[in-house]
Amino acid sequence: MDIGNVLLMLAVIFALAKSAAFVFNRFGVPGLIGEILVGILISNLVIGDWSFEQTLHLNDPEYFDILEVFAEVGVAFLLFSVGLETRVKDLTSVGRSAIMVATLGVIIPFILGYAYIEYFADGNMYHALFLGAAMVATSVGITARVIKDMKLTDTKESRIIIGAAVIDDILGMIVLAIVAGMAESGSVEISSILSITILAVAFVLIVLLFCSMGVPKIYAMVEKRNERKLIADPSYIPRKINMLSVSIAVCLGFAFLADYIGLAAIIGAFLAGMIFADYAWDWGLEEKIESINVFLVSFFFVYVGLQVDMGQITENLLLIALAVIILAIIGKYIGCSLGAKVCDRKIDRSSLNIIGIGMIPRGEVGIIVATIGMKIMVDGVPALSQELYTVVVLMSVVTTLVAPPLLASAFRKKYPPEYQIDAHDQL
Amino acid sequence: MDIGNVLLMLAVIFALAKSAAFVFNRFGVPGLIGEILVGILISNLVIGDWSFEQTLHLNDPEYFDILEVFAEVGVAFLLFSVGLETRVKDLTSVGRSAIMVATLGVIIPFILGYAYIEYFADGNMYHALFLGAAMVATSVGITARVIKDMKLTDTKESRIIIGAAVIDDILGMIVLAIVAGMAESGSVEISSILSITILAVAFVLIVLLFCSMGVPKIYAMVEKRNERKLIADPSYIPRKINMLSVSIAVCLGFAFLADYIGLAAIIGAFLAGMIFADYAWDWGLEEKIESINVFLVSFFFVYVGLQVDMGQITENLLLIALAVIILAIIGKYIGCSLGAKVCDRKIDRSSLNIIGIGMIPRGEVGIIVATIGMKIMVDGVPALSQELYTVVVLMSVVTTLVAPPLLASAFRKKYPPEYQIDAHDQL
Repeated sequence: MDIGNVLLMLAVIFALAKSAAFVFNRFGVPGLIGEILVGILISNLVIGDWSFEQTLHLNDPEYFDILEVFAEVGVAFLLFSVGLETRVKDLTSVGRSAIMVATLGVIIPFILGYAYIEYFADGNMYHALFLGAAMVATSVGITARVIKDMKLTDTKESRIIIGAAVIDDILGMIVLAIVAGMAESGSVEISSILSITILAVAFVLIVLLFCSMGVPKIYAMVEKRNERKLIADPSYIPRKINMLSVSIAVCLGFAFLADYIGLAAIIGAFLAGMIFADYAWDWGLEEKIESINVFLVSFFFVYVGLQVDMGQITENLLLIALAVIILAIIGKYIGCSLGAKVCDRKIDRSSLNIIGIGMIPRGEVGIIVATIGMKIMVDGVPALSQELYTVVVLMSVVTTLVAPPLLASAFRKKYPPEYQIDAHDQL
Repeated sequence: MDIGNVLLMLAVIFALAKSAAFVFNRFGVPGLIGEILVGILISNLVIGDWSFEQTLHLNDPEYFDILEVFAEVGVAFLLFSVGLETRVKDLTSVGRSAIMVATLGVIIPFILGYAYIEYFADGNMYHALFLGAAMVATSVGITARVIKDMKLTDTKESRIIIGAAVIDDILGMIVLAIVAGMAESGSVEISSILSITILAVAFVLIVLLFCSMGVPKIYAMVEKRNERKLIADPSYIPRKINMLSVSIAVCLGFAFLADYIGLAAIIGAFLAGMIFADYAWDWGLEEKIESINVFLVSFFFVYVGLQVDMGQITENLLLIALAVIILAIIGKYIGCSLGAKVCDRKIDRSSLNIIGIGMIPRGEVGIIVATIGMKIMVDGVPALSQELYTVVVLMSVVTTLVAPPLLASAFRKKYPPEYQIDAHDQL
């Protein structure tokens, strides 16, 4: 291995990804789409004898593996930062509406995706499971960005959407754990599905319980200890522990642990983030992890694009993609607005519209699920085919692009601009 | 490659390194020494059939390469952050004293180290060159820490030490560039040494010139442009560029460029840091890069320790190490205090003592030089032998451990505690 080649690869990918993200952002499009396109460009651009892939040594497995490690560690940190923003107490406070919105918003898209592949497309059960799982998790970042830009954070709809998106993340992780577990064990026996489900749910519940009971106790203990020492000796300076180091160690450790017990590494990273969520603000953790993410996360999205093989895109595949995109949009919209309606019969149509649209974007989470599906082997074949991987990437990109303008217009119908200005002035 | 194994390796190394650094810090010892010891432990701990190295898959080149990439990228970021703290205008303002202290503090240890290996030890010229180069650069971090802890930042001696250490870094990079260039070309002809020297000096000078002339101009241009736009349209919001992304891209790009033209990658990273030094504060860059370093840099020091083979340490090697340590301490002490004396004949002995001792610690820079020496092949053999690599690691560790208590006592002689309290109260 030549370190110069590694530096070239990292420098070029990083610079291209950030430039693309910058340009896309200027036009109001999420930067990650630019980064995925850079990946697609790198793997598909061939001019005569010259190819991008060869210049960056990406056709050499040794260097490709290194990029993969950067991508995987990057996505672990990304999910870790999502976990940092997921507080257990927020989950219990958003109430029934958010829970119902999240639950139906998970079940209906999953069933639609699964049924489509199983009964109308290639009929491969693992394909169907992973495609269903990839259609589940909402990418709250994009919606949150729109809400923030419109200064409508304090509306009822916004709170339900954000709350539901958080619960939806956890449900999504559980669905992924079950699906991945079924594929890894290559078994569809009820007993094995049951044991995987129990393992996944138990892992999540133990961490949630630890978050809501254990962490505050440890924190209070340390505080008390420092107070006692301070009373005994007023010049005592509490030992400073670098919480960033501790949290990174826990993130890497949990990612390994999740992988080790047969779940996805990102599930561990996500749960690790939740452990620190209550104190992330005190310790400036979110900001610090964000700096690490600025460096690492782009490698993941470029890596996603690298695996899209344009040569493979046929008319038939585009039709499948179209069907999946429509099901993904309709499934979320119906599931979530139904969930809101069930809880609050008197809710008006424009509110249901906002909630339904707000939950549409899948963004990175769907892609992450697909990446995992492509890596698990069932009887020597990946659990998710490369063609369906491309479909998931397309689905994520389209739902992400479609949601912001629709959401903005749905919000404007319910809250005309005057309201927004008022809300802004009140701040 | 199994990502689970990678996560295990990263998680265990990170957790052990940070724990060791924490414990060492508590006892007033620089954390990096704990991290190096973790590396030595991992590569040398064998209990019966079990070895640490095997559990972490480090005897598999595939995984070791990945650790190496993390180490190399980490050390590039480390030098980048040193560059961020190196302002060109500080260099020109510290005056003659700092320049003389730095210059003689570089020349004398280099000559002593070179002469010892060439004439008294194994006589291999490349060994001698790299050992000399590893004895050159002061690790200012350790001294700065002592000065800061004693609240003596505003003394004349402190300013000379910090200024000299900065210049010393640049001189050290030039020495490294020349030595590495000689080894890479395997040539000792005057013409080739000359061309390498010119290349190295030119690279450094171009960047320095760009820093002092080009960067302020670009900055002023952008500012003016924004002002003009703001006058034309008062609602204009200047485009936000993520300076962290830009600086990381430049860091990786310069690291590659330096490697490509035959210099060490870290020289490029260091110079890249200098480009942003004037604006690092405005953009919060130092803090953000520091977060990335918290994650990455420990891998470098563990990697350093991994390459120390305890089985190799013989009585003879310890004697060489002892000689090198003594020369490293005496060389810096004499070189630096001589430099101060030459500039200011009336300077008193206690001040010379402070300056001489303050420049002793070599810390990470010496080790980085040795790591590079071990990787360059001359006629199929590394330019620096593994034995001498171990000697450099020992030298760095001992000089780092010895300096802080000596410096504290030297400072106390000149500035008794009353003065420190006064200085503190004035803040």
